[in-house]
Amino acid sequence: MIGILIVTHGNLGVEIIKSAELIMGKQEKVENLTLNLGDNIDSLKGQIKEKIESLSSDKDEVIVLTDLYGGSPSNAVLYNFKNFDFQSIAGVNLPMLLELLSQRKIEKDLNKIVDNILNAGVSGIKSLNEEMKKM
Amino acid sequence: MIGILIVTHGNLGVEIIKSAELIMGKQEKVENLTLNLGDNIDSLKGQIKEKIESLSSDKDEVIVLTDLYGGSPSNAVLYNFKNFDFQSIAGVNLPMLLELLSQRKIEKDLNKIVDNILNAGVSGIKSLNEEMKKM
Repeated sequence: MIGILIVTHGNLGVEIIKSAELIMGKQEKVENLTLNLGDNIDSLKGQIKEKIESLSSDKDEVIVLTDLYGGSPSNAVLYNFKNFDFQSIAGVNLPMLLELLSQRKIEKDLNKIVDNILNAGVSGIKSLNEEMKKM
Repeated sequence: MIGILIVTHGNLGVEIIKSAELIMGKQEKVENLTLNLGDNIDSLKGQIKEKIESLSSDKDEVIVLTDLYGGSPSNAVLYNFKNFDFQSIAGVNLPMLLELLSQRKIEKDLNKIVDNILNAGVSGIKSLNEEMKKM
């Protein structure tokens, strides 16, 4: 099964996992890493390396979600592209994570999974006011 | 200043605020509400009502961000459209929240702010692998 790692400023990663689990139940192979004020970014790069190694130890694919393109957590993930082959998406939201947790059980094609979770993240962003007008 | 309320499953809301504050510093008029397993949805509807009343007490506009369209927190927000005039967007991610925290200081047109934060949320979702190819 595809391993999932979420890397964020603060505890956003751990809490978005808990929110997803409130909806879908307990999930396996979902890890998170945090960057807090004063944390060392080189240390985070190394922690990401270790998590990807661990999640891919059975030759499983790994998808890394981050909170913000251009932020330090994303940059520390980008740095690891020189070490490993994995997929990563910035701008994580709950629709994206829920789609990934579902897709990894049913879809084998990694590129399709990435496309589907990108779409789920984007289409999950919508104005409730506009949706209300359609009701 | 526009009041912000974030309503989510679990502590996603409080932690995305803390993540934004790690980047932008302490923010005013940003509240959150959570729905946990076993919580009463009617109670959440009432809590949302009270928060919107409080945030709009100075005739300020209110924008409510939720985690997931179709989820109970979003539905409890939708219910409050019958009580109040406010804007709400589902699928919150960190780029959306950061944009809102910036926009409310510089832009006065509420519709423009909503458009800008919808765009920020969507354009903040991107494949790091694709971005890496452009570097």
